This record gives sequence, C-alpha cells and structure tokens, in this order.
Amino acid sequence: MIRLFVPQELNPGAALPLDPGQSRYLAAVMRLAVGDELALFNGRDGEWRARITTLGKRNVTVTPEAKTRPQAPGSDLDLIVALVKRGRLETIVEKAAELGAARVRPVITQHTNADRVRLERLQAIAVEAAEQTGRLDVPKVFEPLKLEKLLAGWETGRHLLFCDEAGDAAPLIDALREAPGGAWAILVGPEGGFSPAERDRLRTLSFAIPVSLGPRILRADTAAISAMTLWQAALGDWRP
Amino acid sequence: MIRLFVPQELNPGAALPLDPGQSRYLAAVMRLAVGDELALFNGRDGEWRARITTLGKRNVTVTPEAKTRPQAPGSDLDLIVALVKRGRLETIVEKAAELGAARVRPVITQHTNADRVRLERLQAIAVEAAEQTGRLDVPKVFEPLKLEKLLAGWETGRHLLFCDEAGDAAPLIDALREAPGGAWAILVGPEGGFSPAERDRLRTLSFAIPVSLGPRILRADTAAISAMTLWQAALGDWRP
Repeated sequence: MIRLFVPQELNPGAALPLDPGQSRYLAAVMRLAVGDELALFNGRDGEWRARITTLGKRNVTVTPEAKTRPQAPGSDLDLIVALVKRGRLETIVEKAAELGAARVRPVITQHTNADRVRLERLQAIAVEAAEQTGRLDVPKVFEPLKLEKLLAGWETGRHLLFCDEAGDAAPLIDALREAPGGAWAILVGPEGGFSPAERDRLRTLSFAIPVSLGPRILRADTAAISAMTLWQAALGDWRP
Repeated sequence: MIRLFVPQELNPGAALPLDPGQSRYLAAVMRLAVGDELALFNGRDGEWRARITTLGKRNVTVTPEAKTRPQAPGSDLDLIVALVKRGRLETIVEKAAELGAARVRPVITQHTNADRVRLERLQAIAVEAAEQTGRLDVPKVFEPLKLEKLLAGWETGRHLLFCDEAGDAAPLIDALREAPGGAWAILVGPEGGFSPAERDRLRTLSFAIPVSLGPRILRADTAAISAMTLWQAALGDWRP
C-alpha cells in the first residue's frame, strides 16, 4: 500500500489535490488509476485510507474515506549531528525517520568541515522515509546551528546522550539501564571528533551523559544509527 | 595515522611492496614521503608501526618496525543478508566492518530481486572500512548462496538471530538478555520480507531465535546495522 504525507487536513469525503511531484509519482511511476487505494497521513490526524478521485499527469486528487490508525505521539527524540558530507547527512536523515526521531538538528562544531545543507532536499528525504517506514509523522530537519548556541539555549528537562569517542565513557546500553523516559537528545560529533574544549564543555553539562559506542571508530552515520537503535530499544517504542 | 591492510607477513625490518592502488593512495592522494609513518595489519600478526622506505608513483615499499597492538580474536559474528540493490549492499558491508562482523554472507531468498554481486568490490569496501575503523582483521564477504542451502549446511553450535518482521517476535534486546556467548549469526531479509514458507521454516529451526526490531518498517541496511549494534552492545565487545 502506497503511503503519502500531505500537509492538508484529512476529512472523510473531502478531495485533496496532491502536489505535482506526488501526482507524477502516482500517475506516471506507480501507474495508479482512478479508484485505486492509498494511505494518507499528515502528522496530526492519524492514517487514512483514501482513493484516487481524479488523475492527471501533474494533478491528482485523492479523497480520504476512513481513518485506519489513530495519531499517536512519537518518541520525543532529537538527533543532533555535526554536519558531514552530503551523502552521509542524507543517510542520517533517512535513518532518523526510520528510527523514530522527532527532529534532526545539524550542528557546526570546531572540527566540522562543512557548513551548508540543502534543507529542502533533506526535508524531502525525511518525508519519503517516513512514508516508507510507516510512521504517522515526519521528523523536522532544522537549519544548522553552532553547537555552542544550541547548548546555550538548551530546553529544560531534555536529557542528552553525548557520543564520546574519548573511550572512558560508559557503554550506551548501560547508561540507559536506569534512565528516565521523557525528552531526550543524541549528539553525534563530526568525523574528526569533538575538540578537547568541546568535550570538556559537554562533560560539565548537568543534562549530558557521555556514552561510548564500542572500541572501533564509527563513521557519523553509523554512530547516529547505533545510538538511535539503542535508545529506542531501551527507552523508546521498540518494546511492546 | 593511516592504516593499511596487507596480505603479507609482518616482520620487523622486512620491506614489503604495496599493491599499485595502495601505492598511488600513499604517494599521490596522501602525498606521503620516504620516512613517513603508517600502521599495517594483516589479520594475523597484530598492528605494526611502519615507515615508507621507497616511494614510486605505483610502487611504494613499507617496512614494519614494531608491533603496537597484539592480534586479538574478533567477534564470531556472521551477517547473513538477503541481496539488495548495490548501493545498500555496499553500505551493509561497510557497516559490518565498522560493527565488528567476521563474515558477510549474501543470500538469495524467495523475494530477493537481485542475484549478482561484485564480490571483489564488496571485499575492497570491507578492507577500506576495516582500515578506517581500527580493527585488526577484515570481514570476509562470501559469494551469494540460496538461503535454503545455507540453512541446510548450518554449522553446529552457531546461534541465529532471525530479524522477523511478522511482529510477534520478542524485541532483540530482550532476546539477548540471557543469551550465551560464542558463535552467532544475524539474518536480515530482503526489502520485500521473507515469504510465509521461509518464515515458517526459520521458526522451526532449533538454533534460530526470531526477534523484532521495533514497530516501523526498516530498510535492509538499517535492520542490519541495528541488529549488529544490539548484538555488540549485549554480547559483543562494546562492554569493557
């Protein structure tokens, strides 16, 4: 079953125009016909069974018929990741969607060697991955921010897992054993690692827990996926 | 520090010729000079500090000086993964190297829609990832085999985590809580999932434990990375 994210409200019987990209996808790529079923979600109103009601090459309309899944709150998990090369950053956004993160926040650190993102493209990757993974919302991708600025404006009550390559941190799985639920963030550094000053600063923060991801050097995408996996397995929705 | 995998024996003072690709990498890409240091490993003799002794564009020789890390046995972990599109299979091999798998075994299942691999290229990716991740061996990538044939010749005593999308399996992290150490394998299916017949067959195997990777549909590369992460965190070398 094809799933599409739409920005509009979902109401039974109210036909919705799809955007040109989605229209082309349904008409030209998937070759659907009027009357064919698909699923819609908008991040607020749950998942709906819908049907194609009109079909043009660039303008398809779909009509929601019935709600099939209620909207449920997702994990309140931020993935904060130092900017890395475009391909790996795109992988990270895709995986954040699959692994249930609510937000992706690229940050600029002292050893970051990239400073721009194609935000629209990253957000489109997040939408497509959310459609395919079956979730009912889409992670929001933010404009890059300096790490220092992000830490200065830290939201009260949000815990931070800081993936520390220094080696003396506790294994992530052990650090989460007694951890509380609620709002969390995971911070993954650049491929060159955090600077000593950044590491010292992070270690003084009352809300930050330094954690280790094993004895090998991981690329940023691997570290992000591994950390999100362990968080979901221990505190998130990977347990019934 | 640059790390290179070489097939030769490592002995102090015995100059080794590097292959043309490695020679070009050191001379032209990294622009090293005679006398510069690097690290060598061969999967058997630990890690050695070495120096460049002669330098041509396509023929560089290096001389091991002293062993800096002893060879230690790696995790006895097979990653068995249904063939997926080339890019994702390459990612999976790279991540298997970073996450400490000993072997990658591509398999052909009923819903597999690819049947060939570029084995030499996959092995080269495994070597490069092993060099960068800091391990002292390289995961071996095997020729694809039919899943049925692989199961028929199953090695006595090796446990199998079977990543089951059916939904009623125990979370992987719980399944491993009381699990023994030793030889393990992880099996990840194709993007279309296992067939009902394959799932039934896998569930009858005494050595196989069906496990769940959460409520969302994961791409094959994500499932492989998540499963290897949880295995390393629970049973592997992610604990001191």
